[in-house]
Amino acid sequence: MAEQKRPTGLIANKGIELLTWGTPNGWKASIILEELKEAYGMDYTWQAINIGQNVQKEDWFTKLGPNGRIPVIVDHDKGGFAVQEGLAILAYLTRHYDPEHKFSFTDPLDISRAEQWMAWQHGGLGPMQGQANHFNRFAKERIPYGMQRYTGETERLAGILDTQLKTNDYLVGNKYSIADIASFGWVNIISFSGIDLEQFPNLKKWWKRISERPAVQKGLAIPSKGSFDNDSYQQRLKDEPEFAAKEKDLREAIQKAKEQYGYVFKSP
Amino acid sequence: MAEQKRPTGLIANKGIELLTWGTPNGWKASIILEELKEAYGMDYTWQAINIGQNVQKEDWFTKLGPNGRIPVIVDHDKGGFAVQEGLAILAYLTRHYDPEHKFSFTDPLDISRAEQWMAWQHGGLGPMQGQANHFNRFAKERIPYGMQRYTGETERLAGILDTQLKTNDYLVGNKYSIADIASFGWVNIISFSGIDLEQFPNLKKWWKRISERPAVQKGLAIPSKGSFDNDSYQQRLKDEPEFAAKEKDLREAIQKAKEQYGYVFKSP
Repeated sequence: MAEQKRPTGLIANKGIELLTWGTPNGWKASIILEELKEAYGMDYTWQAINIGQNVQKEDWFTKLGPNGRIPVIVDHDKGGFAVQEGLAILAYLTRHYDPEHKFSFTDPLDISRAEQWMAWQHGGLGPMQGQANHFNRFAKERIPYGMQRYTGETERLAGILDTQLKTNDYLVGNKYSIADIASFGWVNIISFSGIDLEQFPNLKKWWKRISERPAVQKGLAIPSKGSFDNDSYQQRLKDEPEFAAKEKDLREAIQKAKEQYGYVFKSP
Repeated sequence: MAEQKRPTGLIANKGIELLTWGTPNGWKASIILEELKEAYGMDYTWQAINIGQNVQKEDWFTKLGPNGRIPVIVDHDKGGFAVQEGLAILAYLTRHYDPEHKFSFTDPLDISRAEQWMAWQHGGLGPMQGQANHFNRFAKERIPYGMQRYTGETERLAGILDTQLKTNDYLVGNKYSIADIASFGWVNIISFSGIDLEQFPNLKKWWKRISERPAVQKGLAIPSKGSFDNDSYQQRLKDEPEFAAKEKDLREAIQKAKEQYGYVFKSP
């Protein structure tokens, strides 16, 4: 499979080329590109950038995305212009390639509303849920302070989405848009991050609603379908006793950490 | 002084009303508003939201900024439209009130370049330096893992700015803009965050260059001039032996934490 070769540079010479990996930030780019493909027939090229192998830290990559993070897009039809940062990718792609504003807005206040929710995700839900994953899953030692700090903040942020979605099917203008796409990927793995999605019924319905879009399913499968989404997580709890036991242990450790530091859930 | 009364709601009925506090995120809004005032004579109203007293968590505030964070602006000339999130405030204010594009761009690729740097700050430098401050300064216990993780990431990010500024006086189009304003406030307190600014000579020059702008100085004094900026920090090290001793202790603790976890500085 082409995606298993280690990329060493760009491979396309027209249209959009996406450099990505199967993470919540990567999905922002692959989902909007799949939506644009379905809506307008716009094709694109992608390459899998294995972040476990630090391909995104190589010179050819950081020349395009100086932050050394996926996703990055390159617009070969605009002289090889490169865009890094999920928010900026969503904005760029709709500004240039969503002429009917199917996923974006024309009203200046709606443009701002979408920008606000994207920024909220980009500076809040994304980095904080990322830290929750780090302390709950990836840090080599269990540090209760970090676990409760970031799981708690992710819960607060989930509560804000839940409140916003109480009377709205989508975040802005009651229309599915880049504002939703920005947060969707993170909510898609929120169970894995130690959050109980059942606690946020409006958010859960929104997540389901968006999950069911064919382009979203296609975007989530780039570079390949993962097993960290909320449905897979619940399924594994049922199917794999060893996995379920480890997860039960983790949940208890998070709960204990919350108690140790007097964490109390609070979200408007 | 008016700013010492605890705000209970909006006080203006025309123009922009800013709800803020003297933090790197607050300064984004106060600096761009001072720049617009100087450039176009555009007046605005501000109220100090004491985040130590959690004014930003009160109902009247979260109706405007549901995330419960400063800064928030309200545009009384647009039906009381409220904007939260620094990136979205910078974009909104220049979109509507910078007709000559003195601090923003018209070329679509420059618009994207500015958006990318603002998003980079909003999702990277801001939250990560914020976590460095938390673990180095505000957490009730010293957690070496957190100290080195976030001080290290802030250093990596400072290195990326330093590289970008090697051949450019400003981040985008060699012109002072909202892209610079977004990161400036955080760099303004980077010594306080445990980073040695001398390590990043291009960044230091950029910080000095922007510091000298009269509107920036005015923006930094809203609601009142603080004592955490790089110059004040260096001055206090000289003037206050007790402060200097505490800071030396902190620097050593950060250094020890870095060694304990094998941290090595690496930034393109």
